[in-house]
Amino acid sequence: MAFSEQELLSVVASVFQPDSSAASADILIGIGDDAAVVRGSSQQVITTDVAVENVHFDKRWSNAFDIGRKVTAANIADILAMGAKPEYLVVALSLVGDEGLERVRELAEGIKYEADKTGTQVVGGDIARATAISIAMTAIGSVKSAITRSGAQVGDGIYISSLTGWSAAGLHMLKHDVEAIHAVHAMALNEFRAPSLDYGIDFSRAHALTDTSDALLISSQSIAEASGVNLHINPALIENAYEFKELSLLAQSLGVDVFEWILGGGEDHVFLATGIDLPGIRIGDVRQGSGVTGLEMKKAPQMWRHFQ
Amino acid sequence: MAFSEQELLSVVASVFQPDSSAASADILIGIGDDAAVVRGSSQQVITTDVAVENVHFDKRWSNAFDIGRKVTAANIADILAMGAKPEYLVVALSLVGDEGLERVRELAEGIKYEADKTGTQVVGGDIARATAISIAMTAIGSVKSAITRSGAQVGDGIYISSLTGWSAAGLHMLKHDVEAIHAVHAMALNEFRAPSLDYGIDFSRAHALTDTSDALLISSQSIAEASGVNLHINPALIENAYEFKELSLLAQSLGVDVFEWILGGGEDHVFLATGIDLPGIRIGDVRQGSGVTGLEMKKAPQMWRHFQ
Repeated sequence: MAFSEQELLSVVASVFQPDSSAASADILIGIGDDAAVVRGSSQQVITTDVAVENVHFDKRWSNAFDIGRKVTAANIADILAMGAKPEYLVVALSLVGDEGLERVRELAEGIKYEADKTGTQVVGGDIARATAISIAMTAIGSVKSAITRSGAQVGDGIYISSLTGWSAAGLHMLKHDVEAIHAVHAMALNEFRAPSLDYGIDFSRAHALTDTSDALLISSQSIAEASGVNLHINPALIENAYEFKELSLLAQSLGVDVFEWILGGGEDHVFLATGIDLPGIRIGDVRQGSGVTGLEMKKAPQMWRHFQ
Repeated sequence: MAFSEQELLSVVASVFQPDSSAASADILIGIGDDAAVVRGSSQQVITTDVAVENVHFDKRWSNAFDIGRKVTAANIADILAMGAKPEYLVVALSLVGDEGLERVRELAEGIKYEADKTGTQVVGGDIARATAISIAMTAIGSVKSAITRSGAQVGDGIYISSLTGWSAAGLHMLKHDVEAIHAVHAMALNEFRAPSLDYGIDFSRAHALTDTSDALLISSQSIAEASGVNLHINPALIENAYEFKELSLLAQSLGVDVFEWILGGGEDHVFLATGIDLPGIRIGDVRQGSGVTGLEMKKAPQMWRHFQ
């Protein structure tokens, strides 16, 4: 091993050292005992995610800092997708042992960087040796009234917080060795490496809410199924969306159907909501019926799925 | 892959289906949305653990049910070691894909079996593909007044909930192909495969509390350090303990110093406490000073540590 467990723990603990913010006052017992003790609330939201090297991230394509950001964003997105406030994170890190302390520090700094955006605090963790790097993260938040996937009502508009597909575009570029010449290339690569969560958007009045990490089409289907309604998506509304033109030209230059990225790309952590007069990009409306319609003319996107 | 993601999720979800107990009324939104929503409390206790195949468990030595039990017991022990009540679990499962649905079901059933003992409910999870099986688990509980490692006071007695070393004895037998002829052999093997947590013992009046999963000596050192005191352990008290004679004869028959198992074995999930007139086995007393003393005549146990 390139370092002792003691060195490793002290590096990670120093990165996750709580700052003097108000939030850290809610950590009653932090890292170092059998478990952390934090101030809770009457309704806690809990989610867990595991990201595995060469499945969810690739060291050739992302540095340790970006991998830390990406995994954290995915986890926090699930809390935000319940209309909840993310508060605490615990991180279970499996390392091969040849990573070097500096890379582990960068990974921890990426986690902290992304967590800081929502005031989420890392309160505990575990480190183990494994044959491949993996990061399992659990986020805990609080909510007064959760927004589920099952609240969509006939007559709602369907909204996305921003255009999906950028992360898929970045992945395509990396897989096909496309050089980043234009700003739009860099944007796609950034979105793949560490997708920017749409923290700014206010979907608190949404009737139904989820994130699109699996793919916009899958998320739409999950709302349709959970709510017992039909989600009718209008591609013309997507084509009018902010940044559609840039993404479309990029897709064209690489010989890809842009809707394959937008509908089937995934890993964007854009939020999908239904409701009345919401912010974001309106892409359709909720109708009586079932499933997702309106996309019949678009190519069936190649879905990104595990265990298939 | 031997099964689809859909099949896998439905097997796991069916095992973790909440029963009609009172505890399940606290699950406001269970498995199936972006995150679970549960009834929380003013002080939440959070801990995470990851167990990796061939590091923390070995398919040659434990079946899937026992592996599920063992990982769950380790996680729940950390909540109990804060004097807290375990309530919720989330499980992030990395699978190779060749396990077969039946083995995944057994693993989930092992998790549920162990969780049920304390009324802990599995409220969420994630499944990923990886090159080795690993199980990352986060347990969440509630507490009114946490019992940390730092509360030991000069004059306290030192107590363990039961004799440590049985799990190490089982591991030794497996590593050296010792056949299980006597009941004591079976007992050691059972303790290694799925250590029985000392749920019954009441350490709620303890001043300091931890579990001995790393090893009794390490746990003692951590209380001494956190509390700024000396833990003086009296081997004669350990030699009088219930089951010492059986463990000692087993060690003798295998040519091992029994104190190596008892002090350095680990993975027992026995609880170590300091306080006045506690239940369990008294093994020494808390004095002014630092570190752990009294064991000078005993062989330095070979500590089981990662990253060394």
